This record gives sequence, C-alpha cells and structure tokens, in this order.
Amino acid sequence: MNYKLTIQYDGTDFHGWQIQDELRTVQGELTRALSLIEGRPVIVHGSGRTDAGVHAEGQVASAQLKRQITPEKLRAAINGNLDGDLRVMGVEVVADDFHARYSALGKSYLYRVVNGPVISPFWRHFAQHEARRLDLNRMRQAAELFLGTHDWTAFSAAQSEAEHRIRTITGFEIAEHAEGLGHTRLIRIEISADGFLRYMVRMIVGTLLEAGRGEVNDQAIERAITEADRSLVGPTAPACGLTLLGVRY
Amino acid sequence: MNYKLTIQYDGTDFHGWQIQDELRTVQGELTRALSLIEGRPVIVHGSGRTDAGVHAEGQVASAQLKRQITPEKLRAAINGNLDGDLRVMGVEVVADDFHARYSALGKSYLYRVVNGPVISPFWRHFAQHEARRLDLNRMRQAAELFLGTHDWTAFSAAQSEAEHRIRTITGFEIAEHAEGLGHTRLIRIEISADGFLRYMVRMIVGTLLEAGRGEVNDQAIERAITEADRSLVGPTAPACGLTLLGVRY
Repeated sequence: MNYKLTIQYDGTDFHGWQIQDELRTVQGELTRALSLIEGRPVIVHGSGRTDAGVHAEGQVASAQLKRQITPEKLRAAINGNLDGDLRVMGVEVVADDFHARYSALGKSYLYRVVNGPVISPFWRHFAQHEARRLDLNRMRQAAELFLGTHDWTAFSAAQSEAEHRIRTITGFEIAEHAEGLGHTRLIRIEISADGFLRYMVRMIVGTLLEAGRGEVNDQAIERAITEADRSLVGPTAPACGLTLLGVRY
Repeated sequence: MNYKLTIQYDGTDFHGWQIQDELRTVQGELTRALSLIEGRPVIVHGSGRTDAGVHAEGQVASAQLKRQITPEKLRAAINGNLDGDLRVMGVEVVADDFHARYSALGKSYLYRVVNGPVISPFWRHFAQHEARRLDLNRMRQAAELFLGTHDWTAFSAAQSEAEHRIRTITGFEIAEHAEGLGHTRLIRIEISADGFLRYMVRMIVGTLLEAGRGEVNDQAIERAITEADRSLVGPTAPACGLTLLGVRY
C-alpha cells in the first residue's frame, strides 16, 4: 500500500529534512519509525527538503509499505516512535503512482516577522525579530514584482542540483496578524509557487525586508529579478522564521 | 526609582518563578540581571510565584533601583543580560509604594488544551493534550459553579503559606479558538480571581476536564467546592498548559 503522510515539525532541533548519517533529521526519524513498523528498511520520500531550523505545518511524505494497516493505526504507530517535535497529523492511502515529490504541483511557505522593540519568548524559534520599523505598504508593493515566471538564479543557493531555475510565483500575501500566543502582532509573509529553489524564500524575504526598511527601491529589485543580479539581492533571512505551510497535489 | 516590569517567559526550562540556589528560575535570572546593572544586589518582587513549566504572558515584577535610567534603556539592559526564553516586554516608573505582590488586585490565567487525536509539535510545551472528546457545554456549565467567593482548601496544595484560603473567582470563560501556529484548534480556559492559591487553577481545570469527559457531575463538583472535599476534586492538570496572562492593579 502507498501511504501519504501529512507532517508537522518544529525544526529547531533538526538538521533539516534530508537523511544524514549521525545527524538527527526529519527524514531520518520517519525512516527509522516506518522501518521499525514494517520490519525492514522503508524509503520515505518528502515533497522536498527543508533546511536546518525551518519548520513545517504541512510537509508531505509518501512511503510504500507491505504491511496492511489502517491509516489511524499507522499514524499512532509512527507517532509512538517519534519525539514530540515531529508529528504525523494525517495518513491517507493513495494510488500506487503517488509520489510526495514528483506528484507535487505547488507549495506554500510562510515567513513570520515580529516587528517591534522586543520579541516575545514564545516566538523566538518561529519568527525573525526586526526591531527597525518596517513599511508594510512598501513591502506589498515590492512583493508584486516577484509574481510570475522568472529564472530565480539570483535568488537561490549558488550550488544547486536543480536542472533549471525557472519557477512561477503564483501568490504573495503580506498581512499583519494578531496571535494569541504571547499577545503578539506578527507580519505574515505567505508565498506560493509551483516550486522553490534552495534559499529562494529566505532570499526573497531578505530583499523584502530591505524594501520595508527603505534600503532598496523597486527598480533595484526589478533588476535583481530580471537581470538575475545577485549583488542586488538582500541577505538570506534566518531559517527560524520560515515554515512550509502546505503542498498542493 | 521604583520600576514596574511586565514580563513574558516560556516556562519550559525554568524551575518556576522563585529564586533558588543552583536552579535556574525566573526571579533568579531577573535578580542577576538587575544586580549587574545596579552594581549591587537588587531585590525583585513578583506578583506571585508560578510553578516549574508554567508560562507567563503578563507577569509583573517590581524593583527599586538607585541608578537613574530611562524605562527603554533599562528594558534593553535587562534583556541584554537574559536568554531568549525570558523577556521584559515593558518597563514603567511607578510610585514608591507600588509593590508587584501587595498592590495586586487580581490575576488572570489561561489554560490551553488541544482536544484531538494528535497534538501539533508547536503546542507541545504550551497546551495539554486531551485525545478523549471534551464536551464544551458541560465544561461551561461546570465552570459556572466555580464563580464567586469560597474557601478553596480542596482546590489547592495541601501545604501552603497562605493565611486563609478564601478567594473570589470573578471570571470564567471557555472558548474554542483557532491558532495560526500549527493550524490548531485550542480550547482556551480563562479564569480571573482576586488571587489564586498554589495549584488552584490546575486543580480546577483538572476537574473541568473530568466534567468535559462526563466523568463527574455538577452535584459532585458543587460538593467539592462547598464542602471542600478533596476526594471529589479532579487530578491536577499539567503545568505546561498554564499561562499567567496578566495582573490587575
């Protein structure tokens, strides 16, 4: 049977998604738990990697198991073998050709920023702290420039396994939002695309924050995008602010 | 000058509020930071103790300093000497006779419960997980019984320094609430009183959860309150679900 797992993790104490010897990773933990249940090595496919410190509220993985087990029992069995910072929220039986990575049509990421003099202790692992005042309207205006299809070479890691770097950003939303936890006002930057390159969201957010602080103008951002000029791209925003919200199939 | 500090802490890694040799406590950390700034030992008064693992979004402390310093600079100086799980959110200069504990007129606590098969990793330190179905209407009905003035001996720690155990519960609210973090539905139990005894909120919540699971009826709860019968009181709910929301002066 082919199973689709919807997963949440607090990325703080993980060395990212991808399985690595000797390091605690999300894929490594899931592989260990599923292999225990199956009684032999299981291959766990993720929708894509997340870097160390990045969180997920809707990561998706798939795995083929020989063992017949109901989705509810499989979820309980996996969670019983994991620590509390990683949880399988849902399990579905899917068609044999479903693959968490190759079947994905798009993804959404959320970047959280606390904009104020002090960051609440409750958000220290889940948001970037920016003490300097951010102009949300400027950020929204700059965000418009990122919509559409481009070669995102300038906004991605220099080293990459990707065959090409053309991606389409389909949605971009910047909102201020009150969160109950810590009575905190957060800036939520939500971005959707048919796919993302490594560091892409964090480099876009780093550039947006420069725009919000009035350190870069729209023309420079447009040049960074259209001329793929790395020197015009802002610094990569910290991992802790980033959360994979969901994967579209 | 007399300073009033409004404080937030993630209680997970603290041995509670009260200063203790060799243990990391909130009062101990604040005392260390303020004494460093003042250059001599400073006494930090809190509105009251919180137990190990209990959080605060609005704890209040007061301290007298000889050193003249603006509230903004004092806040920055204290926070610069603390780890990220403890933060002074605001500082005010107050009248000399203000005392965080003796001037307090009332407090509000919040208890968070995740009611579902799996608890999101993002809430594991900030909410209790209850997998069995809770009937919110039953809980609300039971909560009504706690309003008013009673001797709360049955709903507090056997050992206590309190002179008497009469307190007035002035507000009780139970709501289901969607939180952005982890796309989670939480049950929020908010309770206000002129003061609380040790374990009082957690014992009341433990009893309310029994009511929500249909394990206790209103008559038994009423007897526990009016006859101070400990045997009718539910188990003490875990510390991690509890947050001191604020102190009224």
